[in-house]
Amino acid sequence: MVTLGTAPAGAEQRLSELGIVLPSPPTPLGAYVEAVRTGNLVFFSGMLPVVEREPQFVGRIGGELTLEDGRKAAATATLNGLSAAKALLGSLDCVAAIAKLGVYIATEGDFREHAKVADGASELLEAIFGTEKLSPRIVLGVASLPLGVPIELELVLEVDDGPPR
Amino acid sequence: MVTLGTAPAGAEQRLSELGIVLPSPPTPLGAYVEAVRTGNLVFFSGMLPVVEREPQFVGRIGGELTLEDGRKAAATATLNGLSAAKALLGSLDCVAAIAKLGVYIATEGDFREHAKVADGASELLEAIFGTEKLSPRIVLGVASLPLGVPIELELVLEVDDGPPR
Amino acid sequence: MVTLGTAPAGAEQRLSELGIVLPSPPTPLGAYVEAVRTGNLVFFSGMLPVVEREPQFVGRIGGELTLEDGRKAAATATLNGLSAAKALLGSLDCVAAIAKLGVYIATEGDFREHAKVADGASELLEAIFGTEKLSPRIVLGVASLPLGVPIELELVLEVDDGPPR
Repeated sequence: MVTLGTAPAGAEQRLSELGIVLPSPPTPLGAYVEAVRTGNLVFFSGMLPVVEREPQFVGRIGGELTLEDGRKAAATATLNGLSAAKALLGSLDCVAAIAKLGVYIATEGDFREHAKVADGASELLEAIFGTEKLSPRIVLGVASLPLGVPIELELVLEVDDGPPR
Repeated sequence: MVTLGTAPAGAEQRLSELGIVLPSPPTPLGAYVEAVRTGNLVFFSGMLPVVEREPQFVGRIGGELTLEDGRKAAATATLNGLSAAKALLGSLDCVAAIAKLGVYIATEGDFREHAKVADGASELLEAIFGTEKLSPRIVLGVASLPLGVPIELELVLEVDDGPPR
Repeated sequence: MVTLGTAPAGAEQRLSELGIVLPSPPTPLGAYVEAVRTGNLVFFSGMLPVVEREPQFVGRIGGELTLEDGRKAAATATLNGLSAAKALLGSLDCVAAIAKLGVYIATEGDFREHAKVADGASELLEAIFGTEKLSPRIVLGVASLPLGVPIELELVLEVDDGPPR
């Protein structure tokens, strides 16, 4: 349907244009795996704002941490998710859609700007996959998260049938 | 399998019989979309008890707000979800099943009647889609929700292959 | 692909070898059902650490309850989930994959060992379904849960096309 002349950049090309180098894939903290494919859907484990298993932020948004901390943590967790996806799929170019993005934010008090924090993940995904692949999104303020981090992401991706383009 | 004489009312007919007029579809608070279809599943964004983006309730159940407030908020969020579904699908009659209903309730203290609050959504869905389409349900008490609302709903719908009947 | 001589034990055989007798299937607390199959996926309601609707634990992990209580509660909820699965599917041998395991833990204070609590569910599933069917996992600390229990589980299973083996 897309002619060669107008083919949109794939996710891998956009990553490269944005100068983003994905981190090494996350590793499980327990008896689970990072992702499982069933049919055309890939379900992922909760992605945390860690680098080499080390939390980059600890605390709650609206407490010790600010909205801007939350946005950065969401972006870090997103990159971990994309790294897990690439490890499973070989290439992000076979991602047909983001079926679910869950953004779970450890909050304190009456914090209400969950949407702005969650945009730290959504805007990065939009930059990489394009506006045409914006996801539906579930955003919750939770009591606590593993390791004390302020953000956990849930991803469900739809992938193309064929081999990566 | 169903003969004409005993055909159950479709969801659209039941909505009409119940005198329910769906609100205008919800609009995103950030860089996301309200729903995405992948195969026969439709994943939705978190549905809030808002009318024209204005929260109808603010606070926590078991704190400022009562169980009955929670039930009303759940019903309002449900109607927003159905409006988003109709905007995507054209008709609610093509809903084959409700694969997931998540009811996330901002609670305070030792509130334990989550199931009664969640029934504010489930009973409305049952009235519209029939007892034969009752959903599985995940109910959680959370720390906070976007805009300070007490209820957020998650819906995953299964839709028929063909065009809406 | 698997030759007869090396066929791994199925889940039903492992249950029997482990001496596990599944409880009677859980029953809904409201207007919902315990599980719905759509295509090859089965979505389940939140599974609680109850026996015959009676909570086996009440309270929060990191508060009145310990990490070890949480692990036991997670195991009890897991058995309820497997009983619901068997009631729907006839046999656990048709489970092809665990597409999602959500472990929602009511926590108090700065509890950070969510992963160890969640392993109470994951390790039991691993013992029954084998390491090759380890699931992806979403683990959240929540504010409260229905009936005051400390653990709720979410399961999405992928099942084989054919009849149970």
